[in-house]
Amino acid sequence: MDERTSVAATLQAEILESMPLADAMDIRIRRYTGDELEMTAPLAPNVNDKGCAFGGSLASLMTLAGWGLVRLALDARAGRVRAAPYDIYVQDSAIRYLAPVWQDFHALARLADASALPAFFDALDARGKARLRVHCSVPLADGSEAATLDAQFVALARADT
Amino acid sequence: MDERTSVAATLQAEILESMPLADAMDIRIRRYTGDELEMTAPLAPNVNDKGCAFGGSLASLMTLAGWGLVRLALDARAGRVRAAPYDIYVQDSAIRYLAPVWQDFHALARLADASALPAFFDALDARGKARLRVHCSVPLADGSEAATLDAQFVALARADT
Repeated sequence: MDERTSVAATLQAEILESMPLADAMDIRIRRYTGDELEMTAPLAPNVNDKGCAFGGSLASLMTLAGWGLVRLALDARAGRVRAAPYDIYVQDSAIRYLAPVWQDFHALARLADASALPAFFDALDARGKARLRVHCSVPLADGSEAATLDAQFVALARADT
Repeated sequence: MDERTSVAATLQAEILESMPLADAMDIRIRRYTGDELEMTAPLAPNVNDKGCAFGGSLASLMTLAGWGLVRLALDARAGRVRAAPYDIYVQDSAIRYLAPVWQDFHALARLADASALPAFFDALDARGKARLRVHCSVPLADGSEAATLDAQFVALARADT
């Protein structure tokens, strides 16, 4: 297991332990490349009245994947430099539901601007608070997208540190 | 139990029966006035890593309340006029997370434009498909809002009818 796979596995365990809804959704982290986080969920616990994936489950999986991407970027930096621990909150999101999802699904999260991380870290060091935009999608097997989410996350230095 | 309370209770039972995640979130319909639908969820099954409500739970509750409002408007009309059964999907949503939620919470859904229903019904009759915008919020005890959602829903006549 390489280091990225190991930190992703740790994050998955923390999410499933601390968030009952993520556990009910049966989410898993499938892949983390440093630039992209892929999170999966089976259809069964996430169906709606029509038998396809509930919009709230798609929104939750994409939000959680985006949150996890920011979390892992901060954790990777904490492994390199001395930095305060941060809490990460979603601030806003715009979601488009493009096609119903009739099978198990996954969300891909990546930074909206891959070059935004240094400025994000600088703002955190200077003000203890910084924002980062993330783009997520739920791809289908044919290459199209079932849903997309564009969200802004804010990281805040923990008050107790 | 008046008629609106009765149809809301039926809808709640259908949601909890058909949607495992709504059951895991422990949602309830508290009030339906015809113009407004109020849906509740306890904090415990919806907490995040920080101990406040998971953004995905807030998004899911608001989406479900908006969906339920459209569902009940269609059901009320079906009780008055002969109309095809419809499936309702969320198409897009814009969510703002304004404050963390540290207690049980509820979502209020109402039409973005209260006068839009006649045109929505006319479009359904003419084309078997129509869109309706809904505004939802998660109010806090002090009168402020913890989150808002503006979403568009589409109703489609069922293919099997």
